[in-house]
Amino acid sequence: MYRIPILRMGQTLLVTIQIDMEDQTAMALQDDLAEQISKTGASGVLIDISALEIVDSFVGRMLAAISGIGQILDATTVVVGMQPAVAITLVELGMSLDGVKTALNVSRGMALLQARADGDDFVA
Amino acid sequence: MYRIPILRMGQTLLVTIQIDMEDQTAMALQDDLAEQISKTGASGVLIDISALEIVDSFVGRMLAAISGIGQILDATTVVVGMQPAVAITLVELGMSLDGVKTALNVSRGMALLQARADGDDFVA
Repeated sequence: MYRIPILRMGQTLLVTIQIDMEDQTAMALQDDLAEQISKTGASGVLIDISALEIVDSFVGRMLAAISGIGQILDATTVVVGMQPAVAITLVELGMSLDGVKTALNVSRGMALLQARADGDDFVA
Repeated sequence: MYRIPILRMGQTLLVTIQIDMEDQTAMALQDDLAEQISKTGASGVLIDISALEIVDSFVGRMLAAISGIGQILDATTVVVGMQPAVAITLVELGMSLDGVKTALNVSRGMALLQARADGDDFVA
């Protein structure tokens, strides 16, 4: 089974999702991320989905689940790089990604995580 | 054709290669990186290959080519996350990746790029 690599950059874990995920891969990513957050004490998780042209409800739920897991483990999850068409699809599917933070690109996502790490919650 | 996304993080471009590349994908990555370095004025390129379990001579040559292109465009390229078996294979293939800088993981690669940006070439 294909596993998506998780990169550690200081206090942040970075995941770039490049191909359409099978269900097993998505589940493994959840498990791996939870383990890595716990192991590294990361305070932020950045998930780049700029390469995804299609996001179905399963992936939407997975993003929400990862965000929820992160919250419990005290790590802020930010999804970045969502294509406009994907955003439209998600809304049409009735998925508003409640509780999932988003940012336009990696740089802005990093800035968001940095601001949270500095305790400046107003930026979010 | 599948294209590998290039993430911009400040002055660094980050590429995570997650699946075995077809030749076309590898060529497109070279072109995209050259264009992005030129467009963004990035001073460093970080290529994570931790997910690759097999690297053949084509990929080895591509890494060397990207490194060379980066050098001409004034960007330092660092390849990180190489698995031990891959390193062994490359040496057995007679590819010493001359001119390609390597680091154990993303954090160390970023530190290397930072040190170069600060003009401290002794660290490398």
